[in-house]
Amino acid sequence: MNILYDERLDGELPDIDKADVLADLQQAAPGLTLLHREEDLRPFECDGLSAYRVLPMLVALPETLEQVETLMKRCRALGVPVVTRGAGTGLSGGALPLEKGVLLVMSRFNRILDVDPDARIARLQPGVRNLAISEAAAPYGLYYAPDPSSQIACSIGGNVAENAGGVHCLKYGLTVHNVMKVEVITIEGERMTLGSEALDAPGLDLLALFTGSEGMLGVVTEITVKLLPKPETAKVLMASFDDVEKAGRAVGDIIAAGIIPGGLEMMDKLAIRAAEDFVKAGYPVQAEAILLCELDGVEADVDDDCATVREVLENAGATGIQQARDEAERATFWAGRKNAFPAVGRMSPDYYCMDGTIPRRELPRVLKGIADFSEEYGLRVANVFHAGDGNMHPLILFDANRPGELEQAEELGGKILELCVEVGGSITGEHGVGREKINQMCAQFNPVELATFHAVKAAFDPHRLLNPGKNIPTLARCAEFGAMHVHNNELPHPELPRF
Amino acid sequence: MNILYDERLDGELPDIDKADVLADLQQAAPGLTLLHREEDLRPFECDGLSAYRVLPMLVALPETLEQVETLMKRCRALGVPVVTRGAGTGLSGGALPLEKGVLLVMSRFNRILDVDPDARIARLQPGVRNLAISEAAAPYGLYYAPDPSSQIACSIGGNVAENAGGVHCLKYGLTVHNVMKVEVITIEGERMTLGSEALDAPGLDLLALFTGSEGMLGVVTEITVKLLPKPETAKVLMASFDDVEKAGRAVGDIIAAGIIPGGLEMMDKLAIRAAEDFVKAGYPVQAEAILLCELDGVEADVDDDCATVREVLENAGATGIQQARDEAERATFWAGRKNAFPAVGRMSPDYYCMDGTIPRRELPRVLKGIADFSEEYGLRVANVFHAGDGNMHPLILFDANRPGELEQAEELGGKILELCVEVGGSITGEHGVGREKINQMCAQFNPVELATFHAVKAAFDPHRLLNPGKNIPTLARCAEFGAMHVHNNELPHPELPRF
Repeated sequence: MNILYDERLDGELPDIDKADVLADLQQAAPGLTLLHREEDLRPFECDGLSAYRVLPMLVALPETLEQVETLMKRCRALGVPVVTRGAGTGLSGGALPLEKGVLLVMSRFNRILDVDPDARIARLQPGVRNLAISEAAAPYGLYYAPDPSSQIACSIGGNVAENAGGVHCLKYGLTVHNVMKVEVITIEGERMTLGSEALDAPGLDLLALFTGSEGMLGVVTEITVKLLPKPETAKVLMASFDDVEKAGRAVGDIIAAGIIPGGLEMMDKLAIRAAEDFVKAGYPVQAEAILLCELDGVEADVDDDCATVREVLENAGATGIQQARDEAERATFWAGRKNAFPAVGRMSPDYYCMDGTIPRRELPRVLKGIADFSEEYGLRVANVFHAGDGNMHPLILFDANRPGELEQAEELGGKILELCVEVGGSITGEHGVGREKINQMCAQFNPVELATFHAVKAAFDPHRLLNPGKNIPTLARCAEFGAMHVHNNELPHPELPRF
Repeated sequence: MNILYDERLDGELPDIDKADVLADLQQAAPGLTLLHREEDLRPFECDGLSAYRVLPMLVALPETLEQVETLMKRCRALGVPVVTRGAGTGLSGGALPLEKGVLLVMSRFNRILDVDPDARIARLQPGVRNLAISEAAAPYGLYYAPDPSSQIACSIGGNVAENAGGVHCLKYGLTVHNVMKVEVITIEGERMTLGSEALDAPGLDLLALFTGSEGMLGVVTEITVKLLPKPETAKVLMASFDDVEKAGRAVGDIIAAGIIPGGLEMMDKLAIRAAEDFVKAGYPVQAEAILLCELDGVEADVDDDCATVREVLENAGATGIQQARDEAERATFWAGRKNAFPAVGRMSPDYYCMDGTIPRRELPRVLKGIADFSEEYGLRVANVFHAGDGNMHPLILFDANRPGELEQAEELGGKILELCVEVGGSITGEHGVGREKINQMCAQFNPVELATFHAVKAAFDPHRLLNPGKNIPTLARCAEFGAMHVHNNELPHPELPRF
């Protein structure tokens, strides 16, 4: 995929000399690990969106708060941009380096500082892996709810930066709903505490603002999360449909029946076949679509809900309904879903994973739209999604070795995201904007809203040194992208940054 | 109570002539209702915190978005501050007028625009009463969860401004957890949409930032809220204790047992007696403290939870446990709690309601601290609180006609809030900072954090025209209040606003 990296950014920066910066940082923070040779930098050139690659100027791997403080102060003084990276599993290029910037890698901050079962909270360094939190809480019958597919590898710091979701976020919320407090270091090298251990904190809600801000506002150095009691039981129903739009309608019907499933996932024919070929999950390969509906909670409650959901699915025209007989079969049903991405990857040299969100009622219409686009572009699209919260992950299959096909895939992806916006949805559900969706931000927001984003960003980072070029498009970019009306060659809000 | 209104504010404003402003607004917005005579302004001189009173210069009662836009544009051009007010039930003086400002009253925006039972959302104008939302949703078996005590009168716009809570917020969250989208008008008179109907929205989370921002960032003109299915059943247990600290400990034990009650409230002896005298709720007047624990959900589930809670309460040393036999008794139990404030009001010429939040585990320690302060100051304190989420409402009883007693009550209140901060809690749970708690903000936040609040505020309102003097203390105020270290008579961050 072509790198959309905005060259103008570096153009506006003061002349940055790598050797000077390295020498400065080495002197200011003698114990700080700094990587600078190309072979050492190479592993950091991309995050989970590997189509975008930029070699960073330097990589810093601090181990203490003081090192982070010093690094920030020096970068601020030298005018060097800083991109913060967690485990590098992000899917929108939020941690894509800058060739004249420092990549601040927080992986060495990997300690679980405290698990308090009475208060049901855990205090963590940002490099702690998502799954490790639940493992540490398990002896107390507790767990950390948000579960991105990458949970075995991704870090809680990255989860905060991207406001990560997962299969269970319909019922248990995104990262923002499960984080109580963060400690941060500003670009000035100063410390702040945002949020509190209480349900609310006074003043402006900077904790929520920080969550999902993709490293644009500061560096998170400690996180306090909520822990939840593990549900007593979980059961899963799999329903087959001979029509993908019927499956889409069934999703809305389940929610309308007063049920909030622990997970409610949908896969279409292409995804079903790919998953079945790959992991033998027992999926009905003749079906046009399947729904996986997990119900969790107290035994009696879950049994009632299973009966209700079964009835709803029947009325919605399901051609078959199967309940996992035991824990092993439940795990198998989920294994197909959780491996859907690599499974699709086996069917095609390349695929491009989208992440739009739409109101549930628009599922049938958007599915139809995606099918039409797929035909128009002659590219197959496999649909896998968190149907319950309207978060879609269409996977566009293409072959990067065929001339023009990559660009076609990108264009098709853009069309899908714009359709999401058109029906009242949004261009990202849980992967973030990062570098990938920066053009679609111009379709999502009006100039007043974008100007406000820039102004809020400037409140934390007036010199635009923190992860510049991500998350918030410049108004100039929006004008070029064509989604913003430019009158007499004048942009609205001329006082705002141009890059 | 003495008015803490900061006179310096007006001193810094351009010379504002009431007649000129009135004439300007009348010409710019011919249909706009504007009140300007003292007798018409009088009803608006305070909100629910009636100890603070200021007569506004003008009151505007718009009925259309265009009128709000025009009003904002003209006030921006004239440099006139704008304080927005909903139903005026707020308890922290967030809607306290300015004598050289316009009070923008949104009460005429009172239409329920849409109730969508399938998507489980309602679209509302800001003047809609909190309880009216649940009434409109009731035919579909749905309701709006946050339920401040004032829910019969308070408006959803005010709820958003103060991030209102209520008895059920432990389980169902504060306003911020139940709002999906708001339409706002900026001080420039421009429109923005924040949030979306999806679970998440891209870009910075300005919706959460706006929620609880007390009218400092813009005017909310439309709100989309989540609706929840009404629980199948709700049961309430009342437990008596011969020791208030034991009751405090039982609260933590219930949560630690894996139960999240729909409501978990505590009252001490003084509050129990006051409530019993007033509403005959059937409370045990000999008890030192009672807990009311409501469990809601599916019948079987609730029965299980009741059994568990009963066991926990017994182990915690409850001297008596009573379960409401029917809906009528349940309502009676709650009537005592919901009328606790007016009940206490009958015992004393004046009372001052505090609103601190603490980690649950600190309940016993803070209760002891409050008792000590009460003795030290010779003022009675009744304790009524949302114990489950650590949100305390100590009511300080005093007689404003006795010289010095008001100041003593204020000082005692300040001590309680500072104790809350000391144990890791916060100075407000659900009432907001407003005018009332502005000094305690200096104890809660460090200069870097306060500077960031000011910078974020300036991103929306660089000329500080929206509700100035509320929510965020100036650094000068913090220095005077003594909670901030001032070196060589220099404040940190000299570039920041001084008033």
